[in-house]
Amino acid sequence: MKTIGILGAGQLGRMLALSGFPFEMRFQFFDTSGSPSVGLEPTYIEPIEPLKSEGLKNFLNECDVVTYEFEHLPLDLVEHIESKHTLYPPAKSIEICQDREKEKALFDTLAIPTTKYRIVNSEADLTKAVEELGLPLVCKTTTEGYDGKGQFVLKQESDIAEAWSTIGNRTLIAEEFINFSRELSVIAVRSASGELKVYPLAENQHNDGILRYSTAPAPKLDKDTAAQASLYMKELLEALKHVGVLTLELFETDSGLIANEMAPRVHNSGHWSMLGAMSSQFENHIRAIADLPLGDTEAQQPTCMINLISHKGDIEKVLGLPYAQVHLYGKEERSGRKLGHINVTANSYDELRWRVENIIQHLDDYPSFEQLKNKEATTM
Amino acid sequence: MKTIGILGAGQLGRMLALSGFPFEMRFQFFDTSGSPSVGLEPTYIEPIEPLKSEGLKNFLNECDVVTYEFEHLPLDLVEHIESKHTLYPPAKSIEICQDREKEKALFDTLAIPTTKYRIVNSEADLTKAVEELGLPLVCKTTTEGYDGKGQFVLKQESDIAEAWSTIGNRTLIAEEFINFSRELSVIAVRSASGELKVYPLAENQHNDGILRYSTAPAPKLDKDTAAQASLYMKELLEALKHVGVLTLELFETDSGLIANEMAPRVHNSGHWSMLGAMSSQFENHIRAIADLPLGDTEAQQPTCMINLISHKGDIEKVLGLPYAQVHLYGKEERSGRKLGHINVTANSYDELRWRVENIIQHLDDYPSFEQLKNKEATTM
Repeated sequence: MKTIGILGAGQLGRMLALSGFPFEMRFQFFDTSGSPSVGLEPTYIEPIEPLKSEGLKNFLNECDVVTYEFEHLPLDLVEHIESKHTLYPPAKSIEICQDREKEKALFDTLAIPTTKYRIVNSEADLTKAVEELGLPLVCKTTTEGYDGKGQFVLKQESDIAEAWSTIGNRTLIAEEFINFSRELSVIAVRSASGELKVYPLAENQHNDGILRYSTAPAPKLDKDTAAQASLYMKELLEALKHVGVLTLELFETDSGLIANEMAPRVHNSGHWSMLGAMSSQFENHIRAIADLPLGDTEAQQPTCMINLISHKGDIEKVLGLPYAQVHLYGKEERSGRKLGHINVTANSYDELRWRVENIIQHLDDYPSFEQLKNKEATTM
Repeated sequence: MKTIGILGAGQLGRMLALSGFPFEMRFQFFDTSGSPSVGLEPTYIEPIEPLKSEGLKNFLNECDVVTYEFEHLPLDLVEHIESKHTLYPPAKSIEICQDREKEKALFDTLAIPTTKYRIVNSEADLTKAVEELGLPLVCKTTTEGYDGKGQFVLKQESDIAEAWSTIGNRTLIAEEFINFSRELSVIAVRSASGELKVYPLAENQHNDGILRYSTAPAPKLDKDTAAQASLYMKELLEALKHVGVLTLELFETDSGLIANEMAPRVHNSGHWSMLGAMSSQFENHIRAIADLPLGDTEAQQPTCMINLISHKGDIEKVLGLPYAQVHLYGKEERSGRKLGHINVTANSYDELRWRVENIIQHLDDYPSFEQLKNKEATTM
């Protein structure tokens, strides 16, 4: 019986464990954030100097394979673990995904189209980037930003000083503003033996930078675009010698797909696979790192995932709907927090939309799918 | 967050917990057999005098609802728990399902057809039963027999002494031998509020008294028969004021359905629902005892469950098949032991049979579905 150690102890770790128990695996968690929500034992909590802790030693002694649910981990910690144990995905994947500059460089190396960008280390650099890439200009910290945090959209030259003082005083990446019709994501998985599978692309709708809906397969996606995304994933997985799930966020534009950013882990935009595919992203991540054959990644029907943010809503009412699969993470309600998700499938996209509308009636002030589609269109 | 206490700590308890975690429930286990395999904490093990133990007190203090995965529990223990806590299903369901005599009496009261029977307390009673019901005659202990244990089939009068000495010296039930075309089972669930749902019937194939295959919906079942089974379940659930899952095993005969026996719990013949229905029997048991709305019980496609008995087989090969869902229980291989199951669905029964044949190629000496069908037919 294999013991899998998970760095991070939130809902992604929890769902990884729930997927791995049926394969007779044991799980333990090592949390450096100090706020685990996984609700499964054993969980080692070492927010301060984890590298020097007894907890880490005990945790590692029990592990056959170490993985993670979260890439914003101290790099020295993961490199230390990798030097002594089997760590999947490799520390290299963390290093690159932690740093937008390195990530962009990898996209460039593999000729994966991405937005034009400049690395910005001063207000003067930012001024130059505005001159070269035009306005609006999207600025992000190169490290640690996620869910829309650490971002600033410059609309006019007079925004430069404010942008630098708000998120600057550290390395930023400035990216040209592009017109895209929608955000897509693609999730793929590579096993320790090199077997490789790709999930169908999902279409994602956000609100205030937080994912609200993922629909897979992305509606009205042409075959060439899907094939292109698969090719990018194969190149990325091979280049990183990645083992486990890798997620790539993409923009769909008139001139094709543009890579935005990637995450070396199971991803919120892949939760639909828990209902819509034979093997979920969680199950396939576990299979990959345990070097088992990968499970089927095809979508069986159009599937939508609805994120529960800030409020859980009237979950009893949702449970009364015969087509809703509810998954709650065991967390208290708090503004902006991901508390759970609801999966729903249907035979057609029309039926799927109708079911989604029925579900969100029972959630507090939930923005409709159409509202978010329109909002995206108007902010472009 | 609700804490569910489960009496028994085997694979059924494990699968109940895995179904309940996504509803933010906690689980703990109380085991009186001394051999828990659940692999989830906390598990209290009190095989000797559980009623007097500190463990029981601690277990109960933490529970919002107590349920069980196994009905062969000391009746005084469950009655004690019910007197102080919420116990679902009720102790009455255990009392009746533990005792074939009481079970038969309930079938009679509700006019649910069952085999003719006699209660046997001596060799003389058994002789009389043979005279009245004819040969062959099926003898079972009234309590504690399961998976074909505690049974004796009398084929001739000279078997009487051997039958009595083998399984007798206690109360037996002698049942007429009936010709049946197949064994079916029906699983239904009733919530604390009285909501009631029924799963489609499954067709079951056994080998040496142990379930090997369950296929749902049972192929070639006419609508009236299915409706009849649903009606029986409704009557049983209401009569027992049962809360949770109830399983009834039935024989299909030329003169209709004959009730064999029931179990007040999730059942091996319902594992297909983990893949084949929107809400599995485990999820619905949890919903029922937590008084949540029940989930959908319809079969989405023809589904077959294959039990892994004694050996796990070449599971890696099975995992390589895109249509096989593998669930292992974390138990060591041992002759006759249930170690896991494999679920498979298909668009048609023909495709389903083909997939099942492919799967069992990777299991050690696994009897084929057709072999067991034929064996049943020839032993009738």
